[in-house]
Amino acid sequence: MFLPLMIGSDVQERVDWKKWKEGRKEEKRRRKEEKLITQMEKQKMKELKEKKAQAEKEEKSNGRSYTLSVALPGSVLDNAQSPELRTYLAGQIARACTVFCVDEIVVFEEQGEDVKNTEGEYKGVGKKGRACVQLARILQYLECPQYLRKAFFPKHQDLQFAGLLNPLDSPHHMRMDEGAEFREGLVLDRPCKAEKGSYVDCGMRKEVRIDKQLQPGLRVTVKLHKDQESGSKCYKGLVVAPHVPRTEKGLYWGYTVRLASCLSGVFTECPFKEGYDITIGTSEKGNNADNVTISPFRHMLVVFGGLSGLEASVETDDNLDVSDPSSLFNLYLNTCPSQGSRTIRTEEAILISLSALRQKITTVFPSSSD
Amino acid sequence: MFLPLMIGSDVQERVDWKKWKEGRKEEKRRRKEEKLITQMEKQKMKELKEKKAQAEKEEKSNGRSYTLSVALPGSVLDNAQSPELRTYLAGQIARACTVFCVDEIVVFEEQGEDVKNTEGEYKGVGKKGRACVQLARILQYLECPQYLRKAFFPKHQDLQFAGLLNPLDSPHHMRMDEGAEFREGLVLDRPCKAEKGSYVDCGMRKEVRIDKQLQPGLRVTVKLHKDQESGSKCYKGLVVAPHVPRTEKGLYWGYTVRLASCLSGVFTECPFKEGYDITIGTSEKGNNADNVTISPFRHMLVVFGGLSGLEASVETDDNLDVSDPSSLFNLYLNTCPSQGSRTIRTEEAILISLSALRQKITTVFPSSSD
Ligand SMILES: C[S@@+](CC[C@H](N)C(=O)[O-])C[C@H]1O[C@@H](n2cnc3c(N)ncnc32)[C@H](O)[C@@H]1O
Ligand SMILES: C[S@@+](CC[C@H](N)C(=O)[O-])C[C@H]1O[C@@H](n2cnc3c(N)ncnc32)[C@H](O)[C@@H]1O
Repeated sequence: MFLPLMIGSDVQERVDWKKWKEGRKEEKRRRKEEKLITQMEKQKMKELKEKKAQAEKEEKSNGRSYTLSVALPGSVLDNAQSPELRTYLAGQIARACTVFCVDEIVVFEEQGEDVKNTEGEYKGVGKKGRACVQLARILQYLECPQYLRKAFFPKHQDLQFAGLLNPLDSPHHMRMDEGAEFREGLVLDRPCKAEKGSYVDCGMRKEVRIDKQLQPGLRVTVKLHKDQESGSKCYKGLVVAPHVPRTEKGLYWGYTVRLASCLSGVFTECPFKEGYDITIGTSEKGNNADNVTISPFRHMLVVFGGLSGLEASVETDDNLDVSDPSSLFNLYLNTCPSQGSRTIRTEEAILISLSALRQKITTVFPSSSD
Repeated sequence: MFLPLMIGSDVQERVDWKKWKEGRKEEKRRRKEEKLITQMEKQKMKELKEKKAQAEKEEKSNGRSYTLSVALPGSVLDNAQSPELRTYLAGQIARACTVFCVDEIVVFEEQGEDVKNTEGEYKGVGKKGRACVQLARILQYLECPQYLRKAFFPKHQDLQFAGLLNPLDSPHHMRMDEGAEFREGLVLDRPCKAEKGSYVDCGMRKEVRIDKQLQPGLRVTVKLHKDQESGSKCYKGLVVAPHVPRTEKGLYWGYTVRLASCLSGVFTECPFKEGYDITIGTSEKGNNADNVTISPFRHMLVVFGGLSGLEASVETDDNLDVSDPSSLFNLYLNTCPSQGSRTIRTEEAILISLSALRQKITTVFPSSSD
């Protein structure tokens, strides 16, 4: 505001000089202030940016990148002594896998029937194949959140004793009023009027409107918006891939179920492009698991045998020339050295082995525990 | 034989000298030989002694000196949905403990009834106490070798569904013709004629005659003589303490069952003079077991809670002033960090926790594994 232009009369000059000096001081102060404000703003911006990056980083490191698959023969069900216990045994397997955050359960046939597994639909019929289909059905039934079961599981004799099953109580089995970022839902047969999109039943008091128009009857994973309009008739959300709760937030999000017509199908029909990069066979004749460490991996597969062990599974598989199952795996492990019973049942071996392996996985991926 | 006495005539002298020299040589040889033989004998004796010591040492190091006890509330049975599943659950607990060579199972009351446990006989009656007694009875039934069950377990409604139970298949459950150093047996009501002693039914084709005269109906552990007369009417053996198969040979020899009227009774009524020298409480609220190592011990106790955890067991125990169960134990451990289910059932937690602890015990007592 004060400019050197005023220089001219002495008095005025003096006064002006005074004023000018004061003016400059004032100006300096202001500039300083402005600079400080800019600096502070910059600092703030920088800090915000850093925080965001940190949050993003944290968000990423909270995620779990690897997957854990378990395979077992459906014949284990034939080891139960009543239809009720058959159902209960299937439930034990589902719970064991849930407790250890298993992402995929593969049920394989070991009765040597030449049936091929097409598009996830198992074509084997007759008594022998029944165990695999029944085990797979009960596993899927238990994995499905309760509020979606009516839609996805019509009455079926395989589920006759489903009332005896213990719930999985996994994080994706939400209660109605539970606040959650992700939810499993059913795409409803009711189009949105104005905009494109669909309504999804996520087991909440209101339905969720998603951006995409999807085929009614589909099961989808929905990411709910953080801020919902309280007065709105429905919630809003986005459809995401089912792996997102795991890869972004490290949440355990249930397991998929796959049927394989033989042991070799467990490997060859792997749903991951890269295949399983660490495969573990389990047997009391395996190497002492205590002496083994594992390396970082993307997709771990742990395979269990039935009543007669993996030897029987190998024997009935026409695609396999080997007789010693150990040659099929990266590791062949005895996870319970000095066992006090002559045989460990498969449903027990799952809990025992995954407990032993969990500790080894934790040392490779420390962030995923605690 | 040749002595310097012969010195006298020249010729004779020469001849004698020759002889004398030869004699001395001969004598030297003989002495050498004798010395050698003595040395060899000494060496042999020494070697034998060493071997014996080695064998004794090996025999001792094959033994297992420590014991493992597990305690849990009988109320876990009330968590089953049918009488069949109630029985099955008891069987799961028996098997879990057998697989991990548990030596003692303590079933404690957590319903707060003021009942005292006298001489192993549980005095609690009524519906509440039933779970403890039933669990204890099924555990004992399963632990008893099949060939002794008829004698020790008369028909009882607690055992109505015993047919559904999976066998423990532990080393002390022998088949009839199995050659074994130790066997469990029943003292028969049939005195030996000439000598003092008793006959014992050890589930073999012939009865076993033992040196001591014992009360008929007792269950005893018998050590069979290594060399049996093949033509004899009976086998011969010695009665030993039940811990001998474990302490001398490292064999798992089943578990004892103890009832406690409350959680504190688990500690105060410990059957070992020295008490438990390492006590572990289990809870999802415990410390991460991965970060814990244990020291050598004599008697380990691992305690599990029921449906509502050890908090509930502490609350109903009038002898305990604490509210936080962790203060009761040397270690309070979460043996399954990052669990994928909101709750782990007690029967699952036993397998999971003992699998995690087995690895830690093995590092302290390496000889007992492999
Ligand atoms: C009843 S067992 C099979 C026993 C069979 N006789 C054998 O020799 O393998 C069923 C399955 O439990 C698992 N299993 C049993 N004992 C095990 C151990 N000590 N370590 C690892 N897995 C075991 C294996 O997957 C096995 O195929
Ligand atoms: C159904 S759980 C009890 C749950 C109860 N709400 C609690 O908070 O403790 C039954 C028992 O299983 C054992 N358990 C469950 N989860 C566990 C874990 N993560 N680590 C160790 N023990 C566990 C404990 O002994 C527990 O008392």
